Amino acid sequence: MRRMSGVLVLIFYILSLLLPLPTTTASSCCSIKGLPLVRNISELPQDNYGRGGLSHITLAGSAMHGLKEVEVWLQTFSPGSRTPIHRHSCEEIFVVLKGSGTLYLASSSHEKYPGKPQEYFVFANSTFHIPVNDVHQVNLST
Amino acid sequence: MRRMSGVLVLIFYILSLLLPLPTTTASSCCSIKGLPLVRNISELPQDNYGRGGLSHITLAGSAMHGLKEVEVWLQTFSPGSRTPIHRHSCEEIFVVLKGSGTLYLASSSHEKYPGKPQEYFVFANSTFHIPVNDVHQVNLST
Repeated sequence: MRRMSGVLVLIFYILSLLLPLPTTTASSCCSIKGLPLVRNISELPQDNYGRGGLSHITLAGSAMHGLKEVEVWLQTFSPGSRTPIHRHSCEEIFVVLKGSGTLYLASSSHEKYPGKPQEYFVFANSTFHIPVNDVHQVNLST
Repeated sequence: MRRMSGVLVLIFYILSLLLPLPTTTASSCCSIKGLPLVRNISELPQDNYGRGGLSHITLAGSAMHGLKEVEVWLQTFSPGSRTPIHRHSCEEIFVVLKGSGTLYLASSSHEKYPGKPQEYFVFANSTFHIPVNDVHQVNLST
C-alpha cells in the first residue's frame, strides 16, 4: 500500500441508513463508471479535501463504485493533525495500520448534547468502532 | 498484524438488512460484553470454523461488539484453499493485503439462478466489492 509518514488509518463508513437498496437490483458486476471491478489501490486517486496533513483514498464507495450500504476509505494523517469533532447516523469502524494517537469519544448518543468525552489510546494494529451518533474525534500523535 | 503464510484478506460484511437499528439508541461507548473499545488485533481470538487453511478473526462484529450495521473480518487463507460458492443479501468489500488468487463472480443477482461466472485476478494491494446477491467464490493461489 502507498504509505506516507504519519498515521495510516482505514475508516469504514456505513451508508445504509441514507441510501436504501432498490427492491429490484439490476445486474451490477462492474462499477457504474466503467472502472475495473478489481482495483489496484496504488493507482486510486487521492485527495486532501483542503485539509492539511490528510491523504484520503476511497477504496470502495458510493459515487465512484455504486455502493449503497458501505464505504471503505484509506486515510493517512500527518503527526499533529486531527479529524473534526463530529458525529454521524451510522456505525464506523477503524483499523489502525500505522502510528498512534488519541480517540475522544462522547458516548451519550441518546442525548441532545454530548457529554464529556472519554480518552482512548489508539495504536498500530488496533481496531475500534464508533457507535451511531456518538460524537468523536481522533488526534494523531505519531 | 498477525500473518500466516498464504493470502491475507480483509472482508467487510454488512448486516444492516438483517438487523435494523432500534429507534432509540442507548448509550453505547463500550462493547456489550465488557471488551475494551480499542482492541489489539494480535490478541483477538481466531478460529477456522472447521475449514482447513482458514484463519478467521472478527475485528468488529455483532455478537462480540454489538455492531448492528457492519462486520469487519481479517481472514487468512492458505494457498490452494477457497471460499464456498455463496451469495448474501448485503454488499461485501475485500481488501487484499497479501497473496493472489481468482475471484469468480456471477453478476446476475436479479435472476433466480446465477449465470456463468466471470473470472477476475485479485492480488496484493487490490480491492474489490461484491454486489448484493451476486454469487461468488474466491480461490487463493499464492
